[in-house]
Amino acid sequence: MGKQTEIGIGKKALQLVLASSDELSELKPQMEKTSYTYCLGKTGSMDLQKVVSAIETAAKRNGIIKENLYREMHALYHAILEAVQGVTRGQVQLGDVMRTVGLRFAVVRGQPYEDREEGEWIAVALYGTIGAPIRGLEHETAGLGINHI
Amino acid sequence: MGKQTEIGIGKKALQLVLASSDELSELKPQMEKTSYTYCLGKTGSMDLQKVVSAIETAAKRNGIIKENLYREMHALYHAILEAVQGVTRGQVQLGDVMRTVGLRFAVVRGQPYEDREEGEWIAVALYGTIGAPIRGLEHETAGLGINHI
Amino acid sequence: MGKQTEIGIGKKALQLVLASSDELSELKPQMEKTSYTYCLGKTGSMDLQKVVSAIETAAKRNGIIKENLYREMHALYHAILEAVQGVTRGQVQLGDVMRTVGLRFAVVRGQPYEDREEGEWIAVALYGTIGAPIRGLEHETAGLGINHI
Amino acid sequence: MGKQTEIGIGKKALQLVLASSDELSELKPQMEKTSYTYCLGKTGSMDLQKVVSAIETAAKRNGIIKENLYREMHALYHAILEAVQGVTRGQVQLGDVMRTVGLRFAVVRGQPYEDREEGEWIAVALYGTIGAPIRGLEHETAGLGINHI
Amino acid sequence: MGKQTEIGIGKKALQLVLASSDELSELKPQMEKTSYTYCLGKTGSMDLQKVVSAIETAAKRNGIIKENLYREMHALYHAILEAVQGVTRGQVQLGDVMRTVGLRFAVVRGQPYEDREEGEWIAVALYGTIGAPIRGLEHETAGLGINHI
Amino acid sequence: MGKQTEIGIGKKALQLVLASSDELSELKPQMEKTSYTYCLGKTGSMDLQKVVSAIETAAKRNGIIKENLYREMHALYHAILEAVQGVTRGQVQLGDVMRTVGLRFAVVRGQPYEDREEGEWIAVALYGTIGAPIRGLEHETAGLGINHI
Repeated sequence: MGKQTEIGIGKKALQLVLASSDELSELKPQMEKTSYTYCLGKTGSMDLQKVVSAIETAAKRNGIIKENLYREMHALYHAILEAVQGVTRGQVQLGDVMRTVGLRFAVVRGQPYEDREEGEWIAVALYGTIGAPIRGLEHETAGLGINHI
Repeated sequence: MGKQTEIGIGKKALQLVLASSDELSELKPQMEKTSYTYCLGKTGSMDLQKVVSAIETAAKRNGIIKENLYREMHALYHAILEAVQGVTRGQVQLGDVMRTVGLRFAVVRGQPYEDREEGEWIAVALYGTIGAPIRGLEHETAGLGINHI
Repeated sequence: MGKQTEIGIGKKALQLVLASSDELSELKPQMEKTSYTYCLGKTGSMDLQKVVSAIETAAKRNGIIKENLYREMHALYHAILEAVQGVTRGQVQLGDVMRTVGLRFAVVRGQPYEDREEGEWIAVALYGTIGAPIRGLEHETAGLGINHI
Repeated sequence: MGKQTEIGIGKKALQLVLASSDELSELKPQMEKTSYTYCLGKTGSMDLQKVVSAIETAAKRNGIIKENLYREMHALYHAILEAVQGVTRGQVQLGDVMRTVGLRFAVVRGQPYEDREEGEWIAVALYGTIGAPIRGLEHETAGLGINHI
Repeated sequence: MGKQTEIGIGKKALQLVLASSDELSELKPQMEKTSYTYCLGKTGSMDLQKVVSAIETAAKRNGIIKENLYREMHALYHAILEAVQGVTRGQVQLGDVMRTVGLRFAVVRGQPYEDREEGEWIAVALYGTIGAPIRGLEHETAGLGINHI
Repeated sequence: MGKQTEIGIGKKALQLVLASSDELSELKPQMEKTSYTYCLGKTGSMDLQKVVSAIETAAKRNGIIKENLYREMHALYHAILEAVQGVTRGQVQLGDVMRTVGLRFAVVRGQPYEDREEGEWIAVALYGTIGAPIRGLEHETAGLGINHI
């Protein structure tokens, strides 16, 4: 059954997007010791499509998912949408309701459960700011999506 | 305008709910040096009402908000609901759709912006697991809500 | 086509729920002169089901709709749900997210369009308070639902 | 605690958007006698962004909120979105789902509670029509959002 | 009361969108024997507005609804939106969340209830694929909306 | 890539829930010839939890999914919730908004894509009635959820 290993895949993804550059220097070698693969990136837009697209592209380019395999794209897509729901809290919309985001994202893939049969899972974490399209009129926001892959 | 100070109120709240007991021992003295007040707690239920109630009660008992002041309760309530949306991703429901949560929560209050006129804000962070009401059939989940107070 | 007569059915419904007793004394004779039929009532609960049920029952008892005709119940039901969405703004939930309402409601039925072929429509207006289940920790709320019948 | 003064801020906002020009002539002097500040306007679009923007601009230009203070913009923004949810009932969308609105709006700011510590609140009321982008194929719609500021 | 006749209007609509061309050849003569009128069509887009519009246009051109009568347009519009909710499951959005649809649609109008007083109803069924805007990265999707007319 | 085989897994699931007993006698032998496994059942309730639970239990008892494997339960759960969104169209709620369902359900598992690497997927189809908790005051409803497993 799904007993989780000590450090969850979601926690790792959140730590990566929250980390300062100093903290990242510590976290990266820790990630190397795990079986997880991951990528990190930044995206900012009033256009939700661009946010979704930036994360998908980074995950494909960094080999976190196989872009020709729909099953992997499907798993990633739903993890992204779930993370976006944490960011947008209510309406999955940005520019349409006059707001913009500046986000760091992490995509982590691996086996978070002790039972090998549970297979691979994917986590998408987002952290940054959301607000009016005027610098400073914004507050922090975060989201986490997790899916089997 | 709303230029944020170096460490955001939301980031602090997320770090608190993500911290292991070792990490908490480091984080707590750091929190003392800031102007933020905060409280930490745990809640688990299939009943969303109990989750909301546990966070409200902890925030009142620890003096994070004044319970007789509706304005403060209103600010906290909406921050909780926004954090819950990150946790539930789509339907703000637990038992009704056959799932349960085990969550750590942090409520942080203070002045995250350099401009003193921006006044106080409140952040609610949640981290834990969500899943079927059977131990192990669950994955991680997180949410962050922020409001002016 | 749907050109509306001077006073809309929705506006009438809203005026009825907003009216003080003095204003009601003025409004009621005005309503008599229109072709509209209507009923007024009050309902308060943490349980959304009771709110829906109170409005349906009042509309049936006052002969605003025929309770044996599903088509009329269906029209009323969707108008109620739309009005409730204005009241709850986001989650169509009360007690589950730890809040309660005290509402006045009006159900108005009639022909709001000049063109007789547009037939009858139904409006449901709600106005009152929403908040924590503690007296005073609440603010105003309103909603309007309109449907063809 | 939050005992409300006789005439709620939300009721005033709704009365302002519902008023005919005759009724406005009566309401405006009444508003002068209260401590409330307010503005009135009209907006119509298939583009929700324009609706949000029109209300924000009017509130800033009329000095209802301070545009450089994010805390006030944040309070107004959420009050607008809540009012829009009453208008759109379900999907916070207009053109994307082929519909358009013509709305009057009122933004009212002041102290609706007897207890001075409850401070200032803001109400946004909307009333008008929603429908297909063809004149006449529309019905009435309304919404009310309230927030502490 | 609303006892349904043997073959429901929703079932007919779903059978029409699911039918292969062979099955359609069988279904069409069956439809002729009922009192139902219907139309069939195809639409594909990343733009939800085009999907709504294609169905409305087909229903008007085929005389399923009278386009000058708002009451009929209103009934159809809500049936379309309900069917779209089955297709999009959660967010009523396509391109904004980076996905596209290819759909067959059926609009059926008639009297599904034995009791003549229940009058006419309209059903909108959708079936096709939803996915990334890359051929093959998609799975099936369906929706059904029903309304009194 | 994800080219689908001739008969989609979702279409099969929908045909199974729509089938009359005569049609089922034809469909079942056809299903035997495919690589799909499936189960059929009925559920009716005002309580959404019971609907979710009935489908999960049937899928486990019939060996469609392995109940000890969280990854399979997770895939099924999200497919169920997506199908329920088609049924409830807007609010994923039944009794809370005073309505009840009587549903047939089909769960189908197998390989719908030609490319073997796409692996197994699961489809959940629902068809039946939704309405007031009074016999006859109801109309048809349907939903389809699909997920990789």
